[in-house]
Amino acid sequence: MSQYKNDVNKILEDLENHIQGFSYGTSPKELYEPISYIMSLGGKRIRPLLTLLAYSLYREDYQEILTPAMAVEVFHNFTLMHDDIMDNAPLRRGKATVHEKWNANTAILSGDVMLVRAYDMLLDIEPKLLPICMALFNQTAAEVCEGQQHDMNFENMGTVSEAAYIDMIRQKTAVLLGFALEFGAILAGAPPTDAKKLYEFGVNIGIGFQLKDDLLDVYADKEKFGKQVGGDIISNKKTFLLLKAKELATGDQNTALENWINAKEFDKEQKVQAVTEIYDQIGIKNLTESKMKEYFDKGFAQYASINVPNQYAYQVLLKLTQDLVNREK
Amino acid sequence: MSQYKNDVNKILEDLENHIQGFSYGTSPKELYEPISYIMSLGGKRIRPLLTLLAYSLYREDYQEILTPAMAVEVFHNFTLMHDDIMDNAPLRRGKATVHEKWNANTAILSGDVMLVRAYDMLLDIEPKLLPICMALFNQTAAEVCEGQQHDMNFENMGTVSEAAYIDMIRQKTAVLLGFALEFGAILAGAPPTDAKKLYEFGVNIGIGFQLKDDLLDVYADKEKFGKQVGGDIISNKKTFLLLKAKELATGDQNTALENWINAKEFDKEQKVQAVTEIYDQIGIKNLTESKMKEYFDKGFAQYASINVPNQYAYQVLLKLTQDLVNREK
Repeated sequence: MSQYKNDVNKILEDLENHIQGFSYGTSPKELYEPISYIMSLGGKRIRPLLTLLAYSLYREDYQEILTPAMAVEVFHNFTLMHDDIMDNAPLRRGKATVHEKWNANTAILSGDVMLVRAYDMLLDIEPKLLPICMALFNQTAAEVCEGQQHDMNFENMGTVSEAAYIDMIRQKTAVLLGFALEFGAILAGAPPTDAKKLYEFGVNIGIGFQLKDDLLDVYADKEKFGKQVGGDIISNKKTFLLLKAKELATGDQNTALENWINAKEFDKEQKVQAVTEIYDQIGIKNLTESKMKEYFDKGFAQYASINVPNQYAYQVLLKLTQDLVNREK
Repeated sequence: MSQYKNDVNKILEDLENHIQGFSYGTSPKELYEPISYIMSLGGKRIRPLLTLLAYSLYREDYQEILTPAMAVEVFHNFTLMHDDIMDNAPLRRGKATVHEKWNANTAILSGDVMLVRAYDMLLDIEPKLLPICMALFNQTAAEVCEGQQHDMNFENMGTVSEAAYIDMIRQKTAVLLGFALEFGAILAGAPPTDAKKLYEFGVNIGIGFQLKDDLLDVYADKEKFGKQVGGDIISNKKTFLLLKAKELATGDQNTALENWINAKEFDKEQKVQAVTEIYDQIGIKNLTESKMKEYFDKGFAQYASINVPNQYAYQVLLKLTQDLVNREK
């Protein structure tokens, strides 16, 4: 394993120990057990890791900000707990969602307390940095909710424009990655222009990640993907691929696509194969890859424009991001 | 109208104008319209009023803290929006609840944004006061959620002790009144011991208010009450009155009470009359009044022990609280 991976794993281990040792409260247990539960389901901890790595560009004592970094993860898991209710999702990371394991009321109220606890963790910040960090956190949190509402609205809309879709994924998923990076930089006392560039780095990379998610759902290598290929096609999810296909399909393609979308009963494999063929005819894979690359390039250009004291830490964050960009599942 | 009422009404008018002129956001409208809607349903605005009056004990420029005071009201309405989903309540202040007028998902997500906006309003505080105010706000917010969870748990429990019930209403409703007062005092730069006494004043008065609510539901003057007398009896709500009755009823009283509680079909008026008669036999009205008076006395004793620069403002807050104590609906 490369040295960079060792370094990242050491940080992740410290973070994980901090998360596991944290107490959110004890009574009533119906309120706090779901918080420990969702936080223990794992996940890659990308967001707090980005905070710690951005901080490490400027300072070496990342252990000092484990609690504020954890706030980003707690906030993220709060949105998952509430989104899962709204999306009626039975599973999260292969385990029962909170509203399934307990009930919707518990998932609402536990989520509310999680958000409060995330703010509590922000109090671990140096007081003079609290107002600016909290303002950015609030802005980000509101945008994440706005993105979720737009996403739900899209489900009831016939067509969604590319611009509206990109803006939705920017709000729903990308701004939190941007905030995670900017937050770490601010906590380290980075120059404000650097902090803003790190935000833009995160947002652009984040949009690219979501486009990659959309793409992998259809074009992933079955062996490597680890979940069903074509799930979005089966459920008519309005991904970048589908909305571009609806925009560009003509004549017979269009008829066939609409028929598959409107079909009430169908063979799943057949639908995935048929819609993928339409995508192939239109060249959706290339279109999505090129859009994704556009955002990745924009993000990396922002990152390349900052000048940090710790060049080694700079390479670590760069390599981690590149690995995420190149992931195949 | 007395001068004190004129003063209170002037403050309420300024507060109401501030609330009405505030923008929570615009797009997507599904997210922000429910916030304006619930905030426009009115209510007595007691909590922010307490913040402004506590501030006025020490300073005259309450207009400076209208936004932070409003945070308390926005937080309160956030809890109402989410509680109404959990309680499956069709009406709030005579109008459709948010989850009825829109849907549960919208009520979840709009509520989430309301909580974020409440924190945003706290940023209007002098930076050096932000950490202490936010710590108290977080503590209060978590306790309110804990109280709501305890209240929901009680619905599935055979018996609830007096101590557990008092603690539940302390968390669910009283601590926010305590916070509202302490918050105003802190913003005005009051001595910390005064601020803490004002908190205790609010908490004890708040417990008294809830006991009074429980009492009025059964013993209010029908003409003055404005809503159905006995609603809690009809729905078997575990109020202070019911849990004391279950604790103290013996023999035939106990059998009759249990029969009414377990009856699936019944004449509402008959049930209210019969249960009220059992309450009368046991002396529940006196018991509740005496418990209520205990908390009111404790609260007013705390208030009497502070020494503030503005004696007139002291009388205004005292009279307002006494009016609330003496209300008959």
